[in-house]
Amino acid sequence: MGNRPLDKLNNALDTLVIVRLKGAREFRGKLQGYDVHMNLVLDDAEELRDGEIVRKIGSVVVRGDNVVYVSP
Amino acid sequence: MGNRPLDKLNNALDTLVIVRLKGAREFRGKLQGYDVHMNLVLDDAEELRDGEIVRKIGSVVVRGDNVVYVSP
Amino acid sequence: MGNRPLDKLNNALDTLVIVRLKGAREFRGKLQGYDVHMNLVLDDAEELRDGEIVRKIGSVVVRGDNVVYVSP
Amino acid sequence: MGNRPLDKLNNALDTLVIVRLKGAREFRGKLQGYDVHMNLVLDDAEELRDGEIVRKIGSVVVRGDNVVYVSP
Amino acid sequence: MGNRPLDKLNNALDTLVIVRLKGAREFRGKLQGYDVHMNLVLDDAEELRDGEIVRKIGSVVVRGDNVVYVSP
Amino acid sequence: MGNRPLDKLNNALDTLVIVRLKGAREFRGKLQGYDVHMNLVLDDAEELRDGEIVRKIGSVVVRGDNVVYVSP
Amino acid sequence: MGNRPLDKLNNALDTLVIVRLKGAREFRGKLQGYDVHMNLVLDDAEELRDGEIVRKIGSVVVRGDNVVYVSP
Repeated sequence: MGNRPLDKLNNALDTLVIVRLKGAREFRGKLQGYDVHMNLVLDDAEELRDGEIVRKIGSVVVRGDNVVYVSP
Repeated sequence: MGNRPLDKLNNALDTLVIVRLKGAREFRGKLQGYDVHMNLVLDDAEELRDGEIVRKIGSVVVRGDNVVYVSP
Repeated sequence: MGNRPLDKLNNALDTLVIVRLKGAREFRGKLQGYDVHMNLVLDDAEELRDGEIVRKIGSVVVRGDNVVYVSP
Repeated sequence: MGNRPLDKLNNALDTLVIVRLKGAREFRGKLQGYDVHMNLVLDDAEELRDGEIVRKIGSVVVRGDNVVYVSP
Repeated sequence: MGNRPLDKLNNALDTLVIVRLKGAREFRGKLQGYDVHMNLVLDDAEELRDGEIVRKIGSVVVRGDNVVYVSP
Repeated sequence: MGNRPLDKLNNALDTLVIVRLKGAREFRGKLQGYDVHMNLVLDDAEELRDGEIVRKIGSVVVRGDNVVYVSP
Repeated sequence: MGNRPLDKLNNALDTLVIVRLKGAREFRGKLQGYDVHMNLVLDDAEELRDGEIVRKIGSVVVRGDNVVYVSP
């Protein structure tokens, strides 16, 4: 089933994604990896709040339980 | 038992659903996939707050623990 | 043991139930299905806040971790 | 070990219990059933807030993760 | 290992303990039982808020996920 | 791997540790035991808020899900 | 798969990382260890709030469920 949530993450590898976290925090970066908990690895990542870049953080491992959604 | 929660999600594949999240956030989009955690894949998705569209986000993977309800 | 929580939900299938969610949200509808997480399927559902109908939503899949109680 | 938490709930079957929930909510009713998650079934239940009855709800299935304590 | 958390609870059986819960709530009572989730059974229990007794509740089953600490 | 989190707790047995909990609460005491949930046993423990001792509680079993960090 | 979240943590061993926690808390330190829950061991760690060092805490074991992200 190529449309299940983890398939979609797999298809999005090496592409730019938006990751919305609980709270007002958001990341934009290249999806480098993920696992079944929706822990994510982003590269060239920027942290945004209310649409504005607040920090460039390069590489980042996001713990899955903070994730609201991932948009490829 | 065709009336269990995941059966209902299965029946709703490829149709328009409303997904209510914790907080005031809501998505409208075509249900493309789901899994046992109620992680969801939506296509042609719009994010709404208080009934108004705040963002069109195309494709989105929603992490299940944010979901309050899905309405086919 | 016919009095365990899931037995009670099973007995309530096809009848009208009240579902109280965390926050002030409440649903009234016909219980169509459930699973061990207390994910629920309601039909002919109405969403209420403070006892007033705020939305008629027809069919709805409620994620169990939002449920406070179900009253048959 | 007749003093473990679920033993105590078992001993309380068919008797009146007070169930304190997260938030200010409380139920009083006859314990009809329970399971390992501390999901509970109450009969002839009343919902109280700050010690006052706010609703009589007859039979109710309470999801265990809302429970703070059960007092037989 | 006689110093693991559940060993300590076992050693405290039949003695007076203080149980601090999330929020400002606290119980004092005789520990009658426990399980691996740190669900607890107290006897001759008193509920305290800010060090003052607000309720005598006799016997009580406390759901473990509310517990911050138990002090024998 | 002697540097994994539980190894570090093991190395800290019988020494003084600081345990930061969710909320502003903090314990200082001698680590007597722990388990895989990071439930902890402290001896000669003091509870602090904003760096000030608010209570001496002797022995205490802390439920792991309240722990933010342990500093040996 | 060398790009999965735990692989990235493994690659970051013995290097300086930033660990963002829920709430405004942040640690900077040398990653000494981790496990599958994303419990972390940091050495030479500093606690920051709003970018300012509030405490030097040397060695620290962080419980994984507090982690928002780890940035190598």
